[in-house]
Amino acid sequence: MSYDLWYWPSIQGRGEFVRLALEAAGVDYRDRARTDGVEALTEDMGSRGGIRPYAPPYVVDGDLAVAQTAHILAWLGERRGFAADDERGNLELIELQLTISDVVAEAHDTHHPLTVSEPYEDQKDAAPRKAEGFREQRMPKYFTYFEDALSAKDGPFVRGDRWSHVDTSLFQLVEGLRYAFPKRMATIEGDYPKLIACHDAVAELDAIAAYLASDRRIAFNEDGIFRHYPELDGA
Amino acid sequence: MSYDLWYWPSIQGRGEFVRLALEAAGVDYRDRARTDGVEALTEDMGSRGGIRPYAPPYVVDGDLAVAQTAHILAWLGERRGFAADDERGNLELIELQLTISDVVAEAHDTHHPLTVSEPYEDQKDAAPRKAEGFREQRMPKYFTYFEDALSAKDGPFVRGDRWSHVDTSLFQLVEGLRYAFPKRMATIEGDYPKLIACHDAVAELDAIAAYLASDRRIAFNEDGIFRHYPELDGA
Repeated sequence: MSYDLWYWPSIQGRGEFVRLALEAAGVDYRDRARTDGVEALTEDMGSRGGIRPYAPPYVVDGDLAVAQTAHILAWLGERRGFAADDERGNLELIELQLTISDVVAEAHDTHHPLTVSEPYEDQKDAAPRKAEGFREQRMPKYFTYFEDALSAKDGPFVRGDRWSHVDTSLFQLVEGLRYAFPKRMATIEGDYPKLIACHDAVAELDAIAAYLASDRRIAFNEDGIFRHYPELDGA
Repeated sequence: MSYDLWYWPSIQGRGEFVRLALEAAGVDYRDRARTDGVEALTEDMGSRGGIRPYAPPYVVDGDLAVAQTAHILAWLGERRGFAADDERGNLELIELQLTISDVVAEAHDTHHPLTVSEPYEDQKDAAPRKAEGFREQRMPKYFTYFEDALSAKDGPFVRGDRWSHVDTSLFQLVEGLRYAFPKRMATIEGDYPKLIACHDAVAELDAIAAYLASDRRIAFNEDGIFRHYPELDGA
């Protein structure tokens, strides 16, 4: 069974959290806007009525389209065996995945504090204060939370020795924040050894290593969620 | 069976979305911080280790604590009969509920565009531009999305003639935005008749009418998510 992933073709963005889980699980999927073009994405979005995706990413299986990153991952995880085996475990994974969505949204807002409809350059006066609070207060608070979650079992993953969609997302969170805030990450990473061990264990999964080395992995850039603006970083 | 809801006791905030669904369903619950005090909330939060709530609200059932508003509602809805009867219906409800979470977060950020750790007064210079984009672009975009979702069936609710947690949340979204942005809502409400009909149908549920008339319903105020600052409103 093959899924269609619809997401902006030139950025990692929120779609990357879905790509990573699909790749890690070896699930067959087509990254439709990368093969068919961005116009095909806006056309597909526009053709859907009723209860439809609010925004990309969304994943289509037959006539079912599921949107919202955390929701896509929970759905695919339970279907394709990269969630938990029990209800409580899945409730925990969803809660963690939603909290990753929250920190990702805050990372985005460091470069878009005032409006999503105008570029960074038009709001860069407000961005340093937003970024400072994110670096100094929010990053440690979220990292402590994930570090504690990773302490519930013996690691390296949240569920122990089996990866889940939360682990691939934590990998991407660390990657993205290293790209966007290298100075800050260099300062604080050492305080979260379980989080970094989880990141490293995901990177070492055969399927992820192959994916990262392929041209399917889009490079970070300043159109995505995690952007490197040196003026927004600091130790 | 009684649940414990833990949330800040002096605001509606995100906890209100949980309260409304519990009230509408007639589910027995204790609003713990309102009976035991806010210190009991911080103490309960602090006592939880491993995979724990990142922030209130969270709902406790025995030794299970579930956090993240949309997630709480999906979980309780499936358990207590105010979700959908089938997998696809529940996938749709969760997607809608998560999108409500997104617009609620954006509504919050209109008065806290730069940092969550400092008061409105310290960021009120940046707030008007954030609020303008929210009023003019985001509110119509989200409302159109919910109006379309409500067109999938004959109403008044998303699932047709049976309310779900998405409907109680849409009610609260409309209530909150009317409180925060009365001028803007007066201008645009008429363009979204299904959304307003859903709001009105929720208000007329016996259990909701009784709840709204009770002292369990906290009044909107300028400590919550939906705040009325006249300088942030506009037609």
